[in-house]
Amino acid sequence: MYRVICSKWFISGVSLTVGAAIGASLNGDSTNRCINPSHGLLNRVPVIPIPSVDAGTDLTTYQLGGQMVGSRSTAAMKYGFPSLANIKTRESYVTSYDPRNRTAAWVIEQLSPDGLTGPSDRKFCDFKEDDTVHVYHRATNADYRGSGFDRGHLAAAANHKWNQKAMDDTFYLSNVSPQNPNLNQNAWNNLEQYCRSLTKHYMNVFVCTGPLYLPRQEPDGKMYVKYQVMGRNHVAVPTHFFKVVILEKQRGEVELRSYVMPNTPVDNKIPLERFLVPIESIERASGLLFVPNIMKRTNSLLAITAGGK
Amino acid sequence: MYRVICSKWFISGVSLTVGAAIGASLNGDSTNRCINPSHGLLNRVPVIPIPSVDAGTDLTTYQLGGQMVGSRSTAAMKYGFPSLANIKTRESYVTSYDPRNRTAAWVIEQLSPDGLTGPSDRKFCDFKEDDTVHVYHRATNADYRGSGFDRGHLAAAANHKWNQKAMDDTFYLSNVSPQNPNLNQNAWNNLEQYCRSLTKHYMNVFVCTGPLYLPRQEPDGKMYVKYQVMGRNHVAVPTHFFKVVILEKQRGEVELRSYVMPNTPVDNKIPLERFLVPIESIERASGLLFVPNIMKRTNSLLAITAGGK
Repeated sequence: MYRVICSKWFISGVSLTVGAAIGASLNGDSTNRCINPSHGLLNRVPVIPIPSVDAGTDLTTYQLGGQMVGSRSTAAMKYGFPSLANIKTRESYVTSYDPRNRTAAWVIEQLSPDGLTGPSDRKFCDFKEDDTVHVYHRATNADYRGSGFDRGHLAAAANHKWNQKAMDDTFYLSNVSPQNPNLNQNAWNNLEQYCRSLTKHYMNVFVCTGPLYLPRQEPDGKMYVKYQVMGRNHVAVPTHFFKVVILEKQRGEVELRSYVMPNTPVDNKIPLERFLVPIESIERASGLLFVPNIMKRTNSLLAITAGGK
Repeated sequence: MYRVICSKWFISGVSLTVGAAIGASLNGDSTNRCINPSHGLLNRVPVIPIPSVDAGTDLTTYQLGGQMVGSRSTAAMKYGFPSLANIKTRESYVTSYDPRNRTAAWVIEQLSPDGLTGPSDRKFCDFKEDDTVHVYHRATNADYRGSGFDRGHLAAAANHKWNQKAMDDTFYLSNVSPQNPNLNQNAWNNLEQYCRSLTKHYMNVFVCTGPLYLPRQEPDGKMYVKYQVMGRNHVAVPTHFFKVVILEKQRGEVELRSYVMPNTPVDNKIPLERFLVPIESIERASGLLFVPNIMKRTNSLLAITAGGK
């Protein structure tokens, strides 16, 4: 059940390393890992102009519907946005909504030690429809009921204990994707905890999380994207999830770590490093861009694409 | 081969009428049509605020990368945009690019009698990569080679004979989707010709075209979106295509006609009216919105969702 055949899942383009990494991770066979170490990846990433948003521009104000942007969500924008579609700001995160799949394309949040403690409590939170999304394109609790999937947070509730509203906002169904319960409660939860632990060692921690819909080869030799849609509103069930972690050190150096996990049960004894993938793989598969935006804001980016800490 | 089982393809939400319409059309059995006539559809469409773009706003200028917007593409914006992601303007159309699927989400153009004639010639045109799209998310001619799919124009070349640059711009691969050759050369071509013929009877004709990725039920009883991706860049092969036609009469009345065809061979003897579907079906399935934008700009919208002219 845990076994994913190496090379069966594919990320668009030349890089097959996400599939490989996942295959290797789930097989638990480190000697047989087909990760292609890509420490020199950034040398191959063309930095071409793409739209980016600086906090405070007219566009930001416009796209955020003229809302006041809280300081934490403004800070979350520091390294730009990976795309510019349907951007919404919330107390604890900034997100881009994918109206076709009825879930976020990505959610960016900033984690900090003081944000991880506080008076807020999950027991006051309920999952709720996002009424800023048109009713045609909105997930409801009824869509999840009886589906067998958890309502998996993208920006995690436990990242935002600093303020009840900040935690409440993580319960919008636009910040949620259908997630395998075993994954949600084990390996993915470990990854979220690990992200929180990074706030002890880095000056700033930014986390961008989102769904992936990866193609896989079928017996006819062709590649297909296939994913379930559930409920009356056809909420898409991602095949995988990504987390891109941007870490700032005191001296301004920036590190990048990017993870992909399949939306299936994952043995939580497998070390998290096994789910590291080259950022290029996520950029190709998601249609998003991270590195060009970051490169505009720092000259000191060290990408960590595989291997331990 | 032409037979699509009624109710096997689904549009998100309550409306199954696209699937129904296609099933009925392809079965060629008008007595067995399961179209739900929805002439009163607009009464059921909630008009809630959504972002929209008026030509000439700062946002337009920003998102169009500061390019000068030609008068024809400015006119194409008259009824707003169905979404605000990755908008590009070209000589003959305005488009929103879907970087994950490596093709447009939609393309809007304005057709007029004088635009349909002119000196330009296809023989001077070549399909070309859109180098405004990041190389990770861009379709190439190599992706199409040997795939068995045509490079199917979304904004048709023959709609823009008025100017060689206008025709050339329809050959960007961002204005192209992988299309079944039989469909491209027969029924879809007929639909394009029909749209051109409407310029004789209406003051203004706006056409919005795009791909759809519709879910279908599998033997396990669950719904799945499944589509092929082809070539090194994993260019998505849509399951269906839509055309939304906005027609303006002299007295300012606006009519709407919306069509869906499957990306399979379609008998070109089937009348085009059989492919009419409620606009709501396209709005739900595509993640786009048309009616709220139009309603902001006219009080006189007559939606034609099924039936003949």
